[in-house]
Amino acid sequence: MRVNGEQYRTIWPDPTDSRRICLIDQRQLPHRFVVETVTSCQQMCAAISEMHVRGAGLIGAAAAFAVYLATLAAPDEGMDPYLREAASELLRSRPTARNLQWAVERMLAAIGTVATPAGKRQLALAAAKAIADEDADFCRRIGIHGLPLLEEISRRKGGKTVHILTHCNAGWLAFVDYGSATAPIYAARDAGLDIHVWVDETRPWNQGARLTAWELQQEGVACTLICDNCGGHLMQKGLVDLVLVGSDRTTHTGDVANKIGTYLKALAAWDNDIPFYVALPSSTFDWNLDNGYDIPIEQRAEEEITTTFGRDEEGAIRTVTLTAPGTRAANYGFDITPARLVTGLITERGVVAAERQAICRLFPEGPGDAATGTDLSVSKK
Amino acid sequence: MRVNGEQYRTIWPDPTDSRRICLIDQRQLPHRFVVETVTSCQQMCAAISEMHVRGAGLIGAAAAFAVYLATLAAPDEGMDPYLREAASELLRSRPTARNLQWAVERMLAAIGTVATPAGKRQLALAAAKAIADEDADFCRRIGIHGLPLLEEISRRKGGKTVHILTHCNAGWLAFVDYGSATAPIYAARDAGLDIHVWVDETRPWNQGARLTAWELQQEGVACTLICDNCGGHLMQKGLVDLVLVGSDRTTHTGDVANKIGTYLKALAAWDNDIPFYVALPSSTFDWNLDNGYDIPIEQRAEEEITTTFGRDEEGAIRTVTLTAPGTRAANYGFDITPARLVTGLITERGVVAAERQAICRLFPEGPGDAATGTDLSVSKK
Repeated sequence: MRVNGEQYRTIWPDPTDSRRICLIDQRQLPHRFVVETVTSCQQMCAAISEMHVRGAGLIGAAAAFAVYLATLAAPDEGMDPYLREAASELLRSRPTARNLQWAVERMLAAIGTVATPAGKRQLALAAAKAIADEDADFCRRIGIHGLPLLEEISRRKGGKTVHILTHCNAGWLAFVDYGSATAPIYAARDAGLDIHVWVDETRPWNQGARLTAWELQQEGVACTLICDNCGGHLMQKGLVDLVLVGSDRTTHTGDVANKIGTYLKALAAWDNDIPFYVALPSSTFDWNLDNGYDIPIEQRAEEEITTTFGRDEEGAIRTVTLTAPGTRAANYGFDITPARLVTGLITERGVVAAERQAICRLFPEGPGDAATGTDLSVSKK
Repeated sequence: MRVNGEQYRTIWPDPTDSRRICLIDQRQLPHRFVVETVTSCQQMCAAISEMHVRGAGLIGAAAAFAVYLATLAAPDEGMDPYLREAASELLRSRPTARNLQWAVERMLAAIGTVATPAGKRQLALAAAKAIADEDADFCRRIGIHGLPLLEEISRRKGGKTVHILTHCNAGWLAFVDYGSATAPIYAARDAGLDIHVWVDETRPWNQGARLTAWELQQEGVACTLICDNCGGHLMQKGLVDLVLVGSDRTTHTGDVANKIGTYLKALAAWDNDIPFYVALPSSTFDWNLDNGYDIPIEQRAEEEITTTFGRDEEGAIRTVTLTAPGTRAANYGFDITPARLVTGLITERGVVAAERQAICRLFPEGPGDAATGTDLSVSKK
């Protein structure tokens, strides 16, 4: 998507030296647009856990490139145990994200198909690129499948503005390109629909205020920032036509782990009879869990709640403390929206009900995939 | 209640010169404890609209003292039109708060009972003091009536910690003393119950992070700050025993206007079968509205969303901008929690169901009060 009119992905190998992985440092947005270069798996682990990169698909792609970087650092003798250690470190960096595990498993399976160290390194780069390309392509397809939902609302409203509420950033910044929740929005913009997005600021990390509002503005999509408390009121007042969010992990029974606060918006949508859709590439499905409440929920540092950061009068990024000294805080990163509150899932293969049978019908290979470790080829598009 | 171990109210006439009204400037908490002196009605209007003082009961008491200050500034000839103009200005300062209107009407009615300017001024001070005393007393009684609810939970849990979730600040800082939602908590603390409070930070103004967490800490009540997105997750995990909030206006049919985001917590409580109580003195009741959705909802400045303030490394209070230049924001101050989601109302006369008949049975004089302008004596306790 566009930054100051120029096309970018969120992560890419340096075209002049593929041992250098470039990524947008999202901690600095929207105040500074900084491209960072990562050259080791350890560095990428830090970039993931410290949220230089975040978001379901992007974490997956970053982990894939991290495994590739690990193959470069690994000794020819003992490459496999080295990679297993690197994989463990990656899996510890963010516990809730399904795509992270999915990408690491897929990378290891791909690398395992060749014997020579040089072959493994070559294949790792190809596999990581394929994961990134696939992520972008899946999001593009989510846009195609989500567009008719917005067209239908627009038709019903006689062409008047369609108001979409979104939480956190499931935009192109959360994936390699297009985004999941934003893909139908960008598709609708391209189709000439009159679209307006209510953007939840998404405390504590302000992904909505810092990232979603910024990327929508860069793409010329009308949007209004609101605090996370506001969505229920807007829904009561008839100012929301559809809620559209992403997911960090979705069980094959349709329970959705997404950014903390998503569940509250799903409840409000349900109470006001407003459709609540979750957009996700199939790499976000967890085929092993029946119950969303079994998904591990990441707890992060108290300081993310007791402090915040922004641009001061001189334009410097500055952290300020919001609370009295000694204030304790709890910082859960995600919550679970039970399937009963989800109107539908928008995937790269189409829109599907949030329930086991429908999901498994659309992804018949799914349950076997992660569970058995088969079908991990990287060329599948 | 206590600040650094010393007893304070939130507003009081200077004991050496009652023409000076002292109040705690809440914009500066928890970073600085500043007592401000207000000497005119205009100054008090600014203090209310700019939120030096805020919260249902405190706004009422501040408005009462403002009417008294207006009598001091009013000319002997033409005092009544002067006061009516002052009253209009006060009513415009915060549109949602019921107590503001209630206090102004009550002051005007009290002043109207005497003829001489000197008599009006004297009565105005007495009436404002009575409103402040009554507010403190009503909150104290709310504590007495709310305590058995917490004792019952404690009993059921075999004395284990009772976890209460609250939103915004309905603490003593929102009233003259004790608070509404906090009064049962302080009563439970005094009764030796093991109590822990989850404090919603309450964006955009951070009343929870800045005020509730601070006042609970000053009183030695265990509390943990959470972002507004977090409550639903805590309820799903069984970590909340009771939700307890205040109200800025409650219809006599039981619909509750309270700080934006309250409705989302009520939905989550309902979905998880957790009691949701609203604590309010009867001055918060609106006897004229049947439908909560008819309550006017204040919209405030965009900058309250796009910027925030806190303590920088040097201890100065500093404002930082969270968003990209040009980001638009909508800032609704309150939302409506429909009566069907409210387990009960805790008032100074007892706990009552959130429905018309029960409320009117407990406050039989209520519907006649504001509607007819009768029964506005200031000595009633």
